[in-house]
Amino acid sequence: MQDNNNRWILAAQCPSRLGTVDVVTRFLKERRCYITEQHSFDDRLSGRFFIRTEFRPEAEGFDAEAFEAEFAARAAEFEMTFELTPPGRRLPVVIMVSKADHCLNDLLYRYRIGQLPIDIRAIVSNHPDLENLAAWHGIAYHHFPITAETKPEQEAQVWSVIEQTGAELVILARYMQVLSSDMCEKLSGRAINIHHSLLPGFKGARPYHQAYEKGVKLVGATAHYINDDLDEGPIITQGVEPVSHADYPEDLVAKGRDVECLTLSRAVALHVERRVFLHAKRTVVFDR
Amino acid sequence: MQDNNNRWILAAQCPSRLGTVDVVTRFLKERRCYITEQHSFDDRLSGRFFIRTEFRPEAEGFDAEAFEAEFAARAAEFEMTFELTPPGRRLPVVIMVSKADHCLNDLLYRYRIGQLPIDIRAIVSNHPDLENLAAWHGIAYHHFPITAETKPEQEAQVWSVIEQTGAELVILARYMQVLSSDMCEKLSGRAINIHHSLLPGFKGARPYHQAYEKGVKLVGATAHYINDDLDEGPIITQGVEPVSHADYPEDLVAKGRDVECLTLSRAVALHVERRVFLHAKRTVVFDR
Amino acid sequence: MQDNNNRWILAAQCPSRLGTVDVVTRFLKERRCYITEQHSFDDRLSGRFFIRTEFRPEAEGFDAEAFEAEFAARAAEFEMTFELTPPGRRLPVVIMVSKADHCLNDLLYRYRIGQLPIDIRAIVSNHPDLENLAAWHGIAYHHFPITAETKPEQEAQVWSVIEQTGAELVILARYMQVLSSDMCEKLSGRAINIHHSLLPGFKGARPYHQAYEKGVKLVGATAHYINDDLDEGPIITQGVEPVSHADYPEDLVAKGRDVECLTLSRAVALHVERRVFLHAKRTVVFDR
Amino acid sequence: MQDNNNRWILAAQCPSRLGTVDVVTRFLKERRCYITEQHSFDDRLSGRFFIRTEFRPEAEGFDAEAFEAEFAARAAEFEMTFELTPPGRRLPVVIMVSKADHCLNDLLYRYRIGQLPIDIRAIVSNHPDLENLAAWHGIAYHHFPITAETKPEQEAQVWSVIEQTGAELVILARYMQVLSSDMCEKLSGRAINIHHSLLPGFKGARPYHQAYEKGVKLVGATAHYINDDLDEGPIITQGVEPVSHADYPEDLVAKGRDVECLTLSRAVALHVERRVFLHAKRTVVFDR
Repeated sequence: MQDNNNRWILAAQCPSRLGTVDVVTRFLKERRCYITEQHSFDDRLSGRFFIRTEFRPEAEGFDAEAFEAEFAARAAEFEMTFELTPPGRRLPVVIMVSKADHCLNDLLYRYRIGQLPIDIRAIVSNHPDLENLAAWHGIAYHHFPITAETKPEQEAQVWSVIEQTGAELVILARYMQVLSSDMCEKLSGRAINIHHSLLPGFKGARPYHQAYEKGVKLVGATAHYINDDLDEGPIITQGVEPVSHADYPEDLVAKGRDVECLTLSRAVALHVERRVFLHAKRTVVFDR
Repeated sequence: MQDNNNRWILAAQCPSRLGTVDVVTRFLKERRCYITEQHSFDDRLSGRFFIRTEFRPEAEGFDAEAFEAEFAARAAEFEMTFELTPPGRRLPVVIMVSKADHCLNDLLYRYRIGQLPIDIRAIVSNHPDLENLAAWHGIAYHHFPITAETKPEQEAQVWSVIEQTGAELVILARYMQVLSSDMCEKLSGRAINIHHSLLPGFKGARPYHQAYEKGVKLVGATAHYINDDLDEGPIITQGVEPVSHADYPEDLVAKGRDVECLTLSRAVALHVERRVFLHAKRTVVFDR
Repeated sequence: MQDNNNRWILAAQCPSRLGTVDVVTRFLKERRCYITEQHSFDDRLSGRFFIRTEFRPEAEGFDAEAFEAEFAARAAEFEMTFELTPPGRRLPVVIMVSKADHCLNDLLYRYRIGQLPIDIRAIVSNHPDLENLAAWHGIAYHHFPITAETKPEQEAQVWSVIEQTGAELVILARYMQVLSSDMCEKLSGRAINIHHSLLPGFKGARPYHQAYEKGVKLVGATAHYINDDLDEGPIITQGVEPVSHADYPEDLVAKGRDVECLTLSRAVALHVERRVFLHAKRTVVFDR
Repeated sequence: MQDNNNRWILAAQCPSRLGTVDVVTRFLKERRCYITEQHSFDDRLSGRFFIRTEFRPEAEGFDAEAFEAEFAARAAEFEMTFELTPPGRRLPVVIMVSKADHCLNDLLYRYRIGQLPIDIRAIVSNHPDLENLAAWHGIAYHHFPITAETKPEQEAQVWSVIEQTGAELVILARYMQVLSSDMCEKLSGRAINIHHSLLPGFKGARPYHQAYEKGVKLVGATAHYINDDLDEGPIITQGVEPVSHADYPEDLVAKGRDVECLTLSRAVALHVERRVFLHAKRTVVFDR
């Protein structure tokens, strides 16, 4: 990784057209910004262009607002959307959980040691179980019980927390409720879920039990953006774990925890480092 | 691996009942057979017991026929089925292919250097394309074209080759035809297919194109025994390969070749070394 | 995994000799013990035999002491050493750490949710840093500072904790001190260390920096029993992680944490489930 | 992969200096070349910059010679070295082997189906064994025996083949001779060797036997550019394979074949697609 203290990230996408790279790189050169890492990809099937650039301003007094305003003008010619991320930026996050704590525990650890550049503003749950874990890390914990009848009210409470904390990303760390269409839409592109199977295999409930029934020799986990189609949102990354005939369903549950944690935290890291680009139902991921 | 020159394999299964291991091990001890490797597993959900034993007779003049006859009597008390495999035994095999040659090429190489203890008696195809490859390895190649109308006749031809060659295993090395129910039944437990996806994901035709559409980040291959339910037969082993947004469908096809070859040859090796036990819709695999 | 409530484990080893399996299995049969899983291996190069058996007594009132006494007599004929582990047994453990907390945090989590059948009796460190983490899990924390001069006294303190807690296993979870020969000998076969490289590559200090210098494309971790030869003790298991030119030494340190945690906890699980057999400088590991 | 029929590759490196990306991208824009994929990296420790660009000329009549001449002028200001690779270019290659044929067989297969964009001009060996294999693929085979005394003459013969065939890359596909310093120097940056261990572990002879002695639980293979320091040349890529106590040295040899083939062919693919940049003792690899 380049020097974090002065590493800016510019992430952008637009329709394919001559000059898509040049519009970015020339602008950076003109402002004396040195590009330390760059990755671009043109998707010939969708006709869409993606670019991620890490750079460090070489001149004194880099003015981010001016940079954004001026670049917006150039970008407009290309119908390019972009995002500028300053050094040391920690993305405001809300985590949603139910009773299982392995993914939460893993995220909290990475957060605590500074490995994940996130700022966990709150933890929301439909159960009270994980309050102590949150408390030890000094993070607000909101227990919002849910029933079929109270779902709209509960989601309103959740939404209120997201808004009040200014969360830009919601992490569903084994939150065992299906979000409403309305909620999915509000969180489009900024809510990451972990599903404990290699999607599209074993969608829905109890995927490890489904996996046992089929007798598969590999299980896995899928981190994806949520959308209104359950377990069908755009995939960010997937992990895999070999299993055998000696693994009963409860063993798959136990064995799967590690790959769930690793897959979810990798997806979050990719997202907050602006390595994931979302277009239609697919992602472009500029992994390291 | 133990010394091949004197390595016998006894593979057996039966309902769970006190004494299932003892009936095997006591018998071997009495006949002065030294057990070099043993693996047993009792499946508590199905109530079924599986055991695989490698041994070397320490007395002169080991008599396999007498061994089988005498052990059969003991095994009968446990409703145990078993199979005794002598040292250096090469399983008679017929390979079925269509046009893609990567799996065939891989199997032929392993066969040629003696890595796979098989005896390839014939290669059968619905296309003439791979005849040269077969010829270079000195193996008979049967071209039996197939159409919807001629399917029964074609399968009769295939069956005739299997019978005349005494093949005990049929390997479908990217044979792109669906076998009839009748053929599936005849080959039950002794025909291994390679499907180019992580089943149960992407069954049926063009799995790499399906995988591209879904935007998955892992592709894979599944080796399984065939049965009458397409791509639903008992799974022996699976392999996996990471892919990215930059892999178009044709790239997935190319990238998948290696994992298909490795997965299929591993399944064949497991089968011929008697490491795979089939029970109902599941396999028990005593891998090394 | 078989039903834990009634799963006994018998692990044994002895010189290779006709009847090594039979002496175990016949004994179990006679006492009406049903074998649910068994794995044996005869090492032809060292002439040594290893066997691990999971069983469940079918008769009422299984008497472990009587079992051990009676089996000892039979085992003696084969110079067989053995160990009987009752259901639900949690191995008494002391963990040693320095400042890095990732492995400790990981072990504590698995301990807390009951995934690792260990009973952590104390945490010992040459630094005070991780006391809070220990406290939150309700585990005694002993801070024993160390200098070149005070090493003998410090090791005496450590040894005293090990003895008083009755620890049967010591886990060196990134303890950054070299143990004395005397200490190594006392802990022979019951102290597991995690080294952050793929041994024998990059022994000694700062292995990730060494790895960076060499420009390797894979880093890893090795869990091994300690002995008097630094980083040369018998290997239990190893894990691996791909890296690239873009990973500076500090990135390798960060990336390596996960594989260190996974490799160490896997080694501990294998050890406490009696899946690891130590003989001379090698291990036999009956993995699931 | 982008459309091969019109995919040009520009690979370049130079000292770190403001404008290193811009000098490339502006030039391409001016000549109406559309960038379909780009990856750049600045190594802050060595102060060196690397860039790889895939592009397609949008104007009719792209003139490669003019392009190179004009770009050379700009590149000179940055002390930038570069290489332009036209669509469909197949790199002229000589393969060197001894008796083991698995890597050769694998390379020939990928060559035959067009998966590796290489043009195998000749196979050179110090043994006659693999002549048939070469013949079946229609490739010239040169048998140059070698002894300690005839080594200079033999290397002169080899060099003569390399020169006469115009080979730009030499692949040492398990060639079991150490090349002289002189030969290493002549082939600097254009000879790839496969070593059957995870370097720097187990350098030199019989690495699998060394691995068995150490009791490692992972073996592997390393593809690297050769230099005058045996098994110390810059690493391109590495592969790994889990092994167990049950794998005797001859099993490691057998198990290792697959990972050797995969690792070597991956390195060759990376090299011919201009994804590998060599600087001092390290490589920068822009993998897909």
